[in-house]
Amino acid sequence: MNAAADRDARHGAGYAAYVFDAYGTLFDVHSAVRRHQQALGPDYQAFSDLWRAKQLEYTWVRSLAGRYRDFATLTEEALDVCFARFPEIDRSLRADLLEAYRRLDCFSEVPVVLSTLRQQGARIAILSNGTPAMLDEAVAAAGIGTLIDEVFSVDTLKIYKTAPAAYALATQSLGLEARDIAFQSSNRWDIAGAKAFGFTCHWINRAGAPDEYPELAPDGVFSTLEGLLA
Amino acid sequence: MNAAADRDARHGAGYAAYVFDAYGTLFDVHSAVRRHQQALGPDYQAFSDLWRAKQLEYTWVRSLAGRYRDFATLTEEALDVCFARFPEIDRSLRADLLEAYRRLDCFSEVPVVLSTLRQQGARIAILSNGTPAMLDEAVAAAGIGTLIDEVFSVDTLKIYKTAPAAYALATQSLGLEARDIAFQSSNRWDIAGAKAFGFTCHWINRAGAPDEYPELAPDGVFSTLEGLLA
Repeated sequence: MNAAADRDARHGAGYAAYVFDAYGTLFDVHSAVRRHQQALGPDYQAFSDLWRAKQLEYTWVRSLAGRYRDFATLTEEALDVCFARFPEIDRSLRADLLEAYRRLDCFSEVPVVLSTLRQQGARIAILSNGTPAMLDEAVAAAGIGTLIDEVFSVDTLKIYKTAPAAYALATQSLGLEARDIAFQSSNRWDIAGAKAFGFTCHWINRAGAPDEYPELAPDGVFSTLEGLLA
Repeated sequence: MNAAADRDARHGAGYAAYVFDAYGTLFDVHSAVRRHQQALGPDYQAFSDLWRAKQLEYTWVRSLAGRYRDFATLTEEALDVCFARFPEIDRSLRADLLEAYRRLDCFSEVPVVLSTLRQQGARIAILSNGTPAMLDEAVAAAGIGTLIDEVFSVDTLKIYKTAPAAYALATQSLGLEARDIAFQSSNRWDIAGAKAFGFTCHWINRAGAPDEYPELAPDGVFSTLEGLLA
């Protein structure tokens, strides 16, 4: 944990509910490619970065255009563009990579952080772009199903984050004001959208990335989810 | 020109108006970095790619969140993140790069293509995410001001492409149905948005990129704007 990065405007106050982004925050999106790293070859990280970047581009572009297409489909289409852009990488890995994406590793601190917050009386929820089926499978594969009270998928709305309606799934379902919900994401763009909506936001800056979205700053920045317990 | 890539469902029909995206389509967004390539060092292309990717991410994320911020500001903020991600690149290049971005090279075929279409009686317009001041300066620097009838900037609406309202600037101002306007962009995501809106779309696939957005396919694909004259 990077002590200098760990600050929180409302540290220690506690929240009635902690809502977590899934991909990148609870689940390591790069673990799918890492599992097949040797077969992918030296460009595996660039391949994984492009897979993620294209998947996100597709969510934003289609949401703005009013043409929703579900996250499982976008994940496949983004993977296919990666194979086209990296012709030296073996396309027969497609099925294995998609299978790995459905069963991503969760970050090591996730179980203890969720169980501690839950023992303190907080409700624990996921709010994700993933389809309900993807999220069910990921949660089950990571063995954290008993630590999560609610799973909210934007698929019920047919619009992706950072649309305010996506974040409103949590306030409406939990019956809480936005500012009384602590929202955690490792994705700085997701923190920007959540902050615009009104959540109390913790950016889990796992990569030590430079800050962005200066007018939509998080309330706290931690290097891992353990910062929530400090 | 790649003959195999040059196909157009309505080839030769002619259109009352040709509407062009600016950045990447008329103007080479990578020419800013290329002018300072030696000073930037070996990572100049990755730096330029990240500058572009972050600029676009910021337009989509903020539009979806309902938090517009103008394109000149986003271009600066994206550049600053690039300097943070590439600490070995000299930050004193900042002002020169921003100056170069205001006066990008236009692609070599642009003047002859625009003047030919205009001589054939078509109206020529730009529809861009850029601010009016950015577009005025870019058009003047490229010396193509006399070839363009209208410049539409999303800044008047405070929402970026691919929102339908952005594309509607052209239909409303030109007094034409969407399908009677030929819309050209080198950005596949922009073609997706324009197709969702209803334009007749020509993807100028300068980079020979793999196709994306399968449900929002262009009506024609050309490797340069010269394909419009074929």
